[in-house]
Amino acid sequence: MIEYRDIEAAAQRIAGVAHRTPVLTSRTADERCGAQLFFKCENFQRMGAFKFRGAYNAISRFSEAQRRAGVLTYSSGNHAQAIALSASLLGIRSAIIMPHDAPALKVAATKGYGAEVIGYDRYTEDREEIGQRLARERGMTLIPPYDHPDVIAGQGTAAKELFEEAGELDVLLVCLGGGGLLAGCALAAAALSPACRVIGVEPEAGNDGQQSLRKGEIVTIGVPKTIADGAQTLHLGRHNFDVIQRHVDDVVTVSDSQLVETMKFFAERMKMIVEPTGCLAAAAALHGVAPVGRKRVGILISGGNVDLATFARLVA
Amino acid sequence: MIEYRDIEAAAQRIAGVAHRTPVLTSRTADERCGAQLFFKCENFQRMGAFKFRGAYNAISRFSEAQRRAGVLTYSSGNHAQAIALSASLLGIRSAIIMPHDAPALKVAATKGYGAEVIGYDRYTEDREEIGQRLARERGMTLIPPYDHPDVIAGQGTAAKELFEEAGELDVLLVCLGGGGLLAGCALAAAALSPACRVIGVEPEAGNDGQQSLRKGEIVTIGVPKTIADGAQTLHLGRHNFDVIQRHVDDVVTVSDSQLVETMKFFAERMKMIVEPTGCLAAAAALHGVAPVGRKRVGILISGGNVDLATFARLVA
Repeated sequence: MIEYRDIEAAAQRIAGVAHRTPVLTSRTADERCGAQLFFKCENFQRMGAFKFRGAYNAISRFSEAQRRAGVLTYSSGNHAQAIALSASLLGIRSAIIMPHDAPALKVAATKGYGAEVIGYDRYTEDREEIGQRLARERGMTLIPPYDHPDVIAGQGTAAKELFEEAGELDVLLVCLGGGGLLAGCALAAAALSPACRVIGVEPEAGNDGQQSLRKGEIVTIGVPKTIADGAQTLHLGRHNFDVIQRHVDDVVTVSDSQLVETMKFFAERMKMIVEPTGCLAAAAALHGVAPVGRKRVGILISGGNVDLATFARLVA
Repeated sequence: MIEYRDIEAAAQRIAGVAHRTPVLTSRTADERCGAQLFFKCENFQRMGAFKFRGAYNAISRFSEAQRRAGVLTYSSGNHAQAIALSASLLGIRSAIIMPHDAPALKVAATKGYGAEVIGYDRYTEDREEIGQRLARERGMTLIPPYDHPDVIAGQGTAAKELFEEAGELDVLLVCLGGGGLLAGCALAAAALSPACRVIGVEPEAGNDGQQSLRKGEIVTIGVPKTIADGAQTLHLGRHNFDVIQRHVDDVVTVSDSQLVETMKFFAERMKMIVEPTGCLAAAAALHGVAPVGRKRVGILISGGNVDLATFARLVA
């Protein structure tokens, strides 16, 4: 079982390597919500997303034998770059299983960090199966995107830093895909701000987390159609759900148009580029989906990796 | 004569009102320059630019009689909004003289902060003359955009915070228009990091500051054609030049295409929106215009007020 002391240990491992990202405030946002908001800006994290925390924490715990064999993962998103960069910093080989049709930019960024990219056909092949086979054949250690205790503990350091800077909070809003960030942050909240309500925020089209929390078991859905590509997961992880059941109060959803409006708010009023998934938590506050009135509210901004052409198309 | 203790006093006046903006770092930028860069992000300042510091400092020193009569300025840029917001926060009336053809967005933003906007024809009328006449007629106090000791002292608090966070630096790069930010930051550097070389950065097309420093007197130029609209000043201020002559080591210039490339770097790699003028200092480092190799370098990012359509056109 993952505990808060695992987050403390992760914080020591990533210290001086990960950015201690700033916590920003906006009077305009506060007036709009009638609340006091604290934005934890993981879009300013290394490689542009919180994923670096968990990946680096996991790989830095490798034994000597694991380090020699290298690290393996499957991801077409931020976790791919997080593993590639972390491995490169720790002098370890990495291999990333990505679909043949992954955006060229992401493939290039992942290779740019020195990773080997292994392509697969996402319509006929199963990436988890390929991952397990390669792990067996090559002796590499597989670090999945979210369903892993060391990944969860690493992600929790983001909320730990937020509470250290902002003090105790009434509400913490966290975007929810597979549940790595939400589980880690909920554990940190339970330890550092026990009265804080922790709320996960999902895209409307992919509310498997909401369904799972209500049903009391992990619910699997079809690929959700949403611009929040980081939250297009089909189900929560086992380790994640375990923590979420214990420490998360509710899961709410927002629409794609609310995400776009929030992305525009960040750009115009806070001069930040936030990717669609990174807007989930803020959208819930700005659109009154989560009850925040007169409260001190933490908002996790998960990342900023959106290509500029897409960004321009959505907000300009 | 303005002294460092005026900056200390300004810092006390703006404490808790202005944002203490974050200092960000980027390994990618460091590798590209072979240096260690510290970006002071005034694009995250209230109303989106450092101008709030000087405006708020100046108005908060008003006597009771001055407060009753209100504050006046001429500006079509960030100083207009800085005065309007500061006056509103201090419960004082403000009037801003802006050209009839000022961007509707800026007029709306200025009015949104509660200011009276007074239009003039920039081709047939002189804004300084209108300002002085209105000041006489209405008894309002005129706070010009840069040529004022309290404005300079306020702007210097940006560099004060940077040195407090990053420690002493070898080089400080600051964008240069009328010289408010450069003069204030140079004074702070002289007090807090005496060995630091302070370098102003101007657009190539408007190098009046460079000419002035070399000639030893204020040089006036025609309206420079550059996307750095915040640096389209025709000459330095008197108070500003006095400080710049004593404390600034050099002035260098960058091209508009270097500014665009830098704006794109900020967006893609640091997830920030920076206006063209705000890119001046960083462009000098990233393009090797200012010698920064193996040095600890402070970079003042002055602001982020660029409308999203223009931003998208320039970088996407």
